[in-house]
Amino acid sequence: MEPRISLITLGVSDLPRARSFYEQLGFTASSASTDDVAFFQAGGMALALWDRDALAADSGTTVHPPGAVTLAHNVRSPADVDAVVEEARAAGATIVRPGADTVWGGYSAAFHDPDGHAWEIAHNPGWPIAEDGSIQLP
Amino acid sequence: MEPRISLITLGVSDLPRARSFYEQLGFTASSASTDDVAFFQAGGMALALWDRDALAADSGTTVHPPGAVTLAHNVRSPADVDAVVEEARAAGATIVRPGADTVWGGYSAAFHDPDGHAWEIAHNPGWPIAEDGSIQLP
Repeated sequence: MEPRISLITLGVSDLPRARSFYEQLGFTASSASTDDVAFFQAGGMALALWDRDALAADSGTTVHPPGAVTLAHNVRSPADVDAVVEEARAAGATIVRPGADTVWGGYSAAFHDPDGHAWEIAHNPGWPIAEDGSIQLP
Repeated sequence: MEPRISLITLGVSDLPRARSFYEQLGFTASSASTDDVAFFQAGGMALALWDRDALAADSGTTVHPPGAVTLAHNVRSPADVDAVVEEARAAGATIVRPGADTVWGGYSAAFHDPDGHAWEIAHNPGWPIAEDGSIQLP
């Protein structure tokens, strides 16, 4: 696993309200945003806003309290997803969702670190990764 | 506020265990780390591990559930901290800690977004900010 974070997703209860808040603060929604999710370029990574319950289900948590988030690490191939999951398992992670194709056309897995922090490991063919590991939204 | 995130701090219950987990995954602890906190360079930003209760107190939350984190946005001066706090207040944030000098030699404030996600806005004179907004740990 390269030492970098690709995406931070905040679980929200009211997406239009949350999107408006971050837009007022100076973040610009990417064209990758939809009615269900908002993405903002944040330096070389992305900030996302998504329904709190959907995020909890996707992240293998039964509840998603206020202030809970999911971190994502994007890799360059589906095989790299599986490799990072095995590294995480060996380091003591709990694998909550093994690598599988996603509805958005990628391949991803999810694990929890020893304190319950949720990570998604993802290959997203629509979001190229630069040589330095940064990502750039549409 | 520039659209970027400087630091993600994960609240942990056992710092040596958490630090070991991330080191096994490929993150390298910065020399800025101490017995109380671990910092890892993660692309142009930093990942931190800190005692869950200390983070909750610093972030204005009464409890810090598993999976909760604090995001930080570093700025170039104490005056910029106060300016971002006023932007956040106008956008609907709850200010939980007004700008004040910190024990680590900086100046910071904290707010919660409309969903309760905690942000710290900080001027850390020991962590210079590059032209592109990235930070580089020692």
